[in-house]
Amino acid sequence: MERASQTSRAVYPGTFDPVTYGHIDIIKRAHLLFDEVIVACAENAEKATLFTLEERIAMLREATEGIAGVSVEPFYGLVVDFVRTKKINVMIRGLRMISDFEYEFQMALTNRRLDDTIETIFMMPSEQYSFLSSKLIKEAAGLGATGLVSFIPAFVEERLQRKLHRR
Amino acid sequence: MERASQTSRAVYPGTFDPVTYGHIDIIKRAHLLFDEVIVACAENAEKATLFTLEERIAMLREATEGIAGVSVEPFYGLVVDFVRTKKINVMIRGLRMISDFEYEFQMALTNRRLDDTIETIFMMPSEQYSFLSSKLIKEAAGLGATGLVSFIPAFVEERLQRKLHRR
Amino acid sequence: MERASQTSRAVYPGTFDPVTYGHIDIIKRAHLLFDEVIVACAENAEKATLFTLEERIAMLREATEGIAGVSVEPFYGLVVDFVRTKKINVMIRGLRMISDFEYEFQMALTNRRLDDTIETIFMMPSEQYSFLSSKLIKEAAGLGATGLVSFIPAFVEERLQRKLHRR
Amino acid sequence: MERASQTSRAVYPGTFDPVTYGHIDIIKRAHLLFDEVIVACAENAEKATLFTLEERIAMLREATEGIAGVSVEPFYGLVVDFVRTKKINVMIRGLRMISDFEYEFQMALTNRRLDDTIETIFMMPSEQYSFLSSKLIKEAAGLGATGLVSFIPAFVEERLQRKLHRR
Amino acid sequence: MERASQTSRAVYPGTFDPVTYGHIDIIKRAHLLFDEVIVACAENAEKATLFTLEERIAMLREATEGIAGVSVEPFYGLVVDFVRTKKINVMIRGLRMISDFEYEFQMALTNRRLDDTIETIFMMPSEQYSFLSSKLIKEAAGLGATGLVSFIPAFVEERLQRKLHRR
Amino acid sequence: MERASQTSRAVYPGTFDPVTYGHIDIIKRAHLLFDEVIVACAENAEKATLFTLEERIAMLREATEGIAGVSVEPFYGLVVDFVRTKKINVMIRGLRMISDFEYEFQMALTNRRLDDTIETIFMMPSEQYSFLSSKLIKEAAGLGATGLVSFIPAFVEERLQRKLHRR
Repeated sequence: MERASQTSRAVYPGTFDPVTYGHIDIIKRAHLLFDEVIVACAENAEKATLFTLEERIAMLREATEGIAGVSVEPFYGLVVDFVRTKKINVMIRGLRMISDFEYEFQMALTNRRLDDTIETIFMMPSEQYSFLSSKLIKEAAGLGATGLVSFIPAFVEERLQRKLHRR
Repeated sequence: MERASQTSRAVYPGTFDPVTYGHIDIIKRAHLLFDEVIVACAENAEKATLFTLEERIAMLREATEGIAGVSVEPFYGLVVDFVRTKKINVMIRGLRMISDFEYEFQMALTNRRLDDTIETIFMMPSEQYSFLSSKLIKEAAGLGATGLVSFIPAFVEERLQRKLHRR
Repeated sequence: MERASQTSRAVYPGTFDPVTYGHIDIIKRAHLLFDEVIVACAENAEKATLFTLEERIAMLREATEGIAGVSVEPFYGLVVDFVRTKKINVMIRGLRMISDFEYEFQMALTNRRLDDTIETIFMMPSEQYSFLSSKLIKEAAGLGATGLVSFIPAFVEERLQRKLHRR
Repeated sequence: MERASQTSRAVYPGTFDPVTYGHIDIIKRAHLLFDEVIVACAENAEKATLFTLEERIAMLREATEGIAGVSVEPFYGLVVDFVRTKKINVMIRGLRMISDFEYEFQMALTNRRLDDTIETIFMMPSEQYSFLSSKLIKEAAGLGATGLVSFIPAFVEERLQRKLHRR
Repeated sequence: MERASQTSRAVYPGTFDPVTYGHIDIIKRAHLLFDEVIVACAENAEKATLFTLEERIAMLREATEGIAGVSVEPFYGLVVDFVRTKKINVMIRGLRMISDFEYEFQMALTNRRLDDTIETIFMMPSEQYSFLSSKLIKEAAGLGATGLVSFIPAFVEERLQRKLHRR
Repeated sequence: MERASQTSRAVYPGTFDPVTYGHIDIIKRAHLLFDEVIVACAENAEKATLFTLEERIAMLREATEGIAGVSVEPFYGLVVDFVRTKKINVMIRGLRMISDFEYEFQMALTNRRLDDTIETIFMMPSEQYSFLSSKLIKEAAGLGATGLVSFIPAFVEERLQRKLHRR
């Protein structure tokens, strides 16, 4: 049955600047539900990112290495266009807080109008990551914080510190 | 592969007192993602419901009649116990508003602690149902509102009016 | 012009159990915008109120005495039916907090579906009343609080104390 | 009576960059309550807008053409100064979501302190526009979205696409 | 200096029906800041509690046994009256979620009006308890959940199960 | 006892660009609970501020002049590092609104992970300042608002007007 094989694949889109344990938690949870999870990393020409697309993808790949069924790909432009190209009909988003909720709802409803064959489903990270954000990690590191390994993998922290303090 | 066949089945639990077009919208959206959706209607011995479990199940069945792959079943006690018995690992919940969000998060995190092999995913109803609730419909009908067919199926309204005003 | 004369009348519905300075603040603000403000006090057969409908209306009348153009009336059943009977097309609600916001939106959207010729507008009380509620006042008084005259008129406090402690 | 004639006029201020069906919905609802609605388009020297003031006003005029009693005007500086100049005592704001609510409350309370003879009233757009924002539309169009006519009038989309992609 | 010695004592009021690890977390954190923490357990004649005042106090005492400087006392009526009697000027409340926030703000502002010499300060539980509530635990246990020891101490679970299922 | 003497000192960190009566209200309330309150003004190299660090500190000092036990100091980098250096274990933050709440929680949880010996406590400003923000004041003044003395001290307004309009 066509539909069934589609539902075992899902896209998890984001900017991942850089990937955190909150993202990794969602990837693992998504992978319990879907055979194949494509982590789609946004080019985001509009928003300035700290890491380049290539750097963000390299970190995502390193962080998800060895999880069969999880792959990482860049995307340009609208996420619904990327998802449609892949012949997938479900996107995953992590929901952390109230402000997330509103933004995510806006995005999901806009995406639904752009392509109503694609559904967004929301998953909940573990409580320990419920307030974690890439933005806060970057701010903390920028102000001199070290030992961020309860938030991000060690190799990500190393690159973050190098990016922020050594150039 | 075991996991894949599991992910094509999902449980959508609730009280459904009575079923609204908001619930039906979520059932249809869930059914696009999963081969089989079991609508699990809670006995809820603690909370007083307007309709009996049998009446709520009968309305759910009538409302989802003809949708292959959707079935309706009662459950007693903890929803995670019901889901586990069915050898399913995913529950679906509709997310409407901020207050939903909090309650749903509390419930989902509690359920995760009770059984961490079961994930809750959240789906978003159509905007037109984003503020709809069974409770509000019952209140409106109790105060004399008629013509509620943009909220609930006609046969549900008929039973609601009869329940509220003819006994 | 018909419409113009209608817009200079508005209904401010509620339970007012009992009236607080927050309600009175909204009444006065509404009266700056509309020639005539009808304060509509709900019978609310479903919800148990501390004061009877007659008592609540008497306190509202005393609290708004001398404000030309403000009248107080009971209503039974749906508020939109009451508003329609009065040939008015606008209802006023005070918005205090986030939880208000959701409930008020639900109510207003439901009312709009029941009668889309009637609009709900929201007004903001003074900050000093932004967290005030009849419920909290009743709880505080029930636990022995006195000197509540920064929340409710003195004659309301007197009746509240008598109601709670002398029967 | 002076006050009555004042209340049949209201100002609906905003940036309208560009006008959406959500704004148009509020304008029409406001017009049911007030004889005259002045849509006041902010110069906003501080915030960079995508469209110039002239372009935003032209689109607003085209979108509200033929609605007797609705006019569009630019304003510079504080909105309360503009409203006062017009001898009007009511401003209208659309309320969509929680985050709106907070920002709008802050603004309204600040405006009240700047001029306490001017009241802000809040109106609720139709559910179908409850999550719509100019910002999201611009982002989607910037990423290549087309067919946005369920969000904005066709002539607005045409100008948006031209603005974003042809320069 | 009088004030200094007062600030090293604080009251942590609540219903504690029953005490959870979230409460215990707050008690420990409060105790890092204040020499003496009085856990004040409300009689709450108005609200029906599952456990009697005596039972709730016994569990609190057992849960905080051995923490020097923490004591447990019942209180009747208004919490500000209790705090004033103790010659203390600070109350502690745990803040978990948005809905907490509103209710807590309402309470704290009301209490401030009742006695403006007493301040309420808010503390944040560990993330792992950020969604935990006595109510949810009681519901889960009532539906048959067991193994709740990540939420409540084992001896509390035992009494909860006995209370719910053996009478 | 070591801990006791520590708890009578607290840090109140912020950007204070510029100080408002909301900040001053929190400083005074904090000072009722702690012998010594250090107002810590962030350098914030990342965020552009309207006033320089020196200007912001000068205004804070003028605003808190004569309150024995309150001092103002700059800090650079992470606030937890500053607090630790001072051998203090408590930070104070004012909580105004929902959006505050989330951001503050994120910050506080991040800080707790960076140094779990430091607690953040939240205090509530007076209702009259519950919606006040430095950002809004700057925007209003930028648009030509004058007479802001219900929000900020007169000498602060003077410097704000000079900063915004005379250069």
